[in-house]
Amino acid sequence: MLLQDALHPSLTDPILDVMNFLNEIALRFPEAISFAPGRPHEKFYDTQQLTTYLDAYIRHLSQERGLTEAQIRTNLFQYGRTNGHIHGLISRMLEKDEGIKAAPESIVVTVGCQEGMFISLRALFSKPTDVLLVGMPCYIGITGAAKLLDIEVVPVTEREDGLDLNELERTLEALKAAGKQPRALYLVADFANPSGRSLPEPARKRLLELAARADMLILEDNPYGFFFREGPRKPTLKSMDDKGQVIYLGSFSKSAFPSLRVGYAVADQRVLGPAGEQHLLAEEFSKIKSLLTVNTSSICQAIIGGMLVMNDCSLLEANHEAIRFYKENMDATLQALERHFPRSEAWSRDVTWNVPDGGYFLVMKLPIEVDEALLEQSARHHQVIWTPMRYFYLGTGGEHELRLSCSYLTPERIEEGISRLARLIKSAMEQRGARALQAG
Amino acid sequence: MLLQDALHPSLTDPILDVMNFLNEIALRFPEAISFAPGRPHEKFYDTQQLTTYLDAYIRHLSQERGLTEAQIRTNLFQYGRTNGHIHGLISRMLEKDEGIKAAPESIVVTVGCQEGMFISLRALFSKPTDVLLVGMPCYIGITGAAKLLDIEVVPVTEREDGLDLNELERTLEALKAAGKQPRALYLVADFANPSGRSLPEPARKRLLELAARADMLILEDNPYGFFFREGPRKPTLKSMDDKGQVIYLGSFSKSAFPSLRVGYAVADQRVLGPAGEQHLLAEEFSKIKSLLTVNTSSICQAIIGGMLVMNDCSLLEANHEAIRFYKENMDATLQALERHFPRSEAWSRDVTWNVPDGGYFLVMKLPIEVDEALLEQSARHHQVIWTPMRYFYLGTGGEHELRLSCSYLTPERIEEGISRLARLIKSAMEQRGARALQAG
Repeated sequence: MLLQDALHPSLTDPILDVMNFLNEIALRFPEAISFAPGRPHEKFYDTQQLTTYLDAYIRHLSQERGLTEAQIRTNLFQYGRTNGHIHGLISRMLEKDEGIKAAPESIVVTVGCQEGMFISLRALFSKPTDVLLVGMPCYIGITGAAKLLDIEVVPVTEREDGLDLNELERTLEALKAAGKQPRALYLVADFANPSGRSLPEPARKRLLELAARADMLILEDNPYGFFFREGPRKPTLKSMDDKGQVIYLGSFSKSAFPSLRVGYAVADQRVLGPAGEQHLLAEEFSKIKSLLTVNTSSICQAIIGGMLVMNDCSLLEANHEAIRFYKENMDATLQALERHFPRSEAWSRDVTWNVPDGGYFLVMKLPIEVDEALLEQSARHHQVIWTPMRYFYLGTGGEHELRLSCSYLTPERIEEGISRLARLIKSAMEQRGARALQAG
Repeated sequence: MLLQDALHPSLTDPILDVMNFLNEIALRFPEAISFAPGRPHEKFYDTQQLTTYLDAYIRHLSQERGLTEAQIRTNLFQYGRTNGHIHGLISRMLEKDEGIKAAPESIVVTVGCQEGMFISLRALFSKPTDVLLVGMPCYIGITGAAKLLDIEVVPVTEREDGLDLNELERTLEALKAAGKQPRALYLVADFANPSGRSLPEPARKRLLELAARADMLILEDNPYGFFFREGPRKPTLKSMDDKGQVIYLGSFSKSAFPSLRVGYAVADQRVLGPAGEQHLLAEEFSKIKSLLTVNTSSICQAIIGGMLVMNDCSLLEANHEAIRFYKENMDATLQALERHFPRSEAWSRDVTWNVPDGGYFLVMKLPIEVDEALLEQSARHHQVIWTPMRYFYLGTGGEHELRLSCSYLTPERIEEGISRLARLIKSAMEQRGARALQAG
């Protein structure tokens, strides 16, 4: 028998339970209409694609790169290069799809974007005075990873128009004054999880300047950038980064398949050794990766590689149907909200929501508290689930908010789901009103 | 420009460079006969196997488990259960192939065995006084991972008949007296990397008793256990573990394909929470895994799953050709050593080696120093490479030893490689002799 107290303290941090909650809520209520999981829709998947892409990559290795059959077998089945073997194709994709110029050697192919986050944190943080800044609310994947490594996390408020840069500036000054080093800021600049918000273009420029002045790196995580509802797409921070302030974290989970667990990090910063020698940060990442997962599955890389070569190294065009699908889902969600939460009725007058320009998520604000009891009531009595926003805050925050994810549904289910949500909220407000009257 | 000094200190530890060296030495000298990499041979691999196994797993999901086409698509393409979806099949395999009884819920499917090591260390180590014990010499994967997490590592000598249990007993007492807690001991009990040595059966029993008395867990890593040269196979520590002292770390890299990056950890210990509630250590592992890699690729799991169902959940029988191949390679290596390093000649009289009962590796002892200069001379002038044993020691040790891996060659290449090695060592000894005479 092991004592919980003797295990790493992060394991009793509520954040780590949230990650489990998010992964399992949909399994607990399989019949409910689920606005909970941040999952891509499966209508774009087909088992046949796996062999088609694998074959395309094998052809590419043989015809374009001149590998022999034995070399191809080594490439597909053996332990591989730590930082991956599709870095050249990813480099071309980044230039085409994002206007990011990154040399292949600066790219680390990771086991999903999550491994990229973990490697970045382990590489950059070494002293107890090193601090990670995050926009608040924030994706659990980064705050949880920071907990695993005993890294101090400091929140900066995210407002409707993105990260509050005035607050960021004050926070940076306060940290310096307290003898702390803000080593990195994590953010999703486009259609953030959980809020759906994006950072306006002028703010991106100012953020890069603030980061450079504070000698702080930016971890730019961009899983949703393709899925714009209103264009044009904004330039990524990395494409605007002329001082090497940005580590770009990419994912193929939304643009290809989540189950492959393939992502990448662009770590093109130069590291200066004590004797004046220089090397790429990607080489440091390689040392860490070799001790976490050795290398990313070559089979999974080959499937992504095949998808890239079949699409001339652009996944934006390959995703045009998915882009339209998520746009229509977000449109359907916004229209259903307008319809089922009319301003004309007293119970719904103070229910509000944001209108994201794209992505999977939006946030609703309610005049009542959004807690697990409400979620339980929602799942059991109305067969609709969603995510309480308080899960994405450190400490307090989000008590009256919930996150809707509209990626894993169809417009018909969205319409029905939002009508169920309206019935839940109407009845919960009436119950709470009645209780308040009784208490009065 | 980032300063090396500001990055995590593990990144300048020589151990982390060794991991890179091991991964890349074969790439630097592609023409050399390589006794360096601990890789399985590729003669057992065929691209067709991937689709055969994948199809078999899809049939299993449909016919045995009654999943619909849509459920199968979710299973193959979507984010999956954190601890994996082939845990039931692995549980059956462990009972058949290793006599290990492990409930499916206690099994965590990992991105190779390496992720299992990392998760184990993160879960178990929390205080600066917690110490990891390792047999010395030791696989870099565990000592490197400990460095990443700032965990103190204490070596215990491994002798020709396995870990020195008297020294272990003294070390445990000394650590306790110094206020330190030996939380876990890592070892490969069967055909260890790098030494090829195995722990005799009576010593296994005593080791379990010592661990129980010291309240210390054992991390049993068993990648090579199938590949016996002289039988019978010894029981794994986990199969003898009636007090829950052993976390068993498994790998499919040698019994299936390395490129899938699928391994597993059996963490069936019970954890006692502060309020008296109990749960499995595997559930704690799940929290950590969700923040490292989210889940292990479902496609890769499906390929392993198909291999398992096609072989009635026993990989021992499926590996009988591979077992014979590695046995013949080890036999060929031992015979070539006898032939090319005759006791009758002065230069080779003091060259010795061990005779492992199985696995991929053996260790040679030379009367001259084994350093990088000798390796360079070996690669450039004799076209044969191997690994200096000093890389597997913390601090001093192994200065006169080298590791030969005989897994990635054929008997013909082994014969030629050992004859080249003999020429290298003869000429190096003559050069050093000549220098000693001149100096005299």
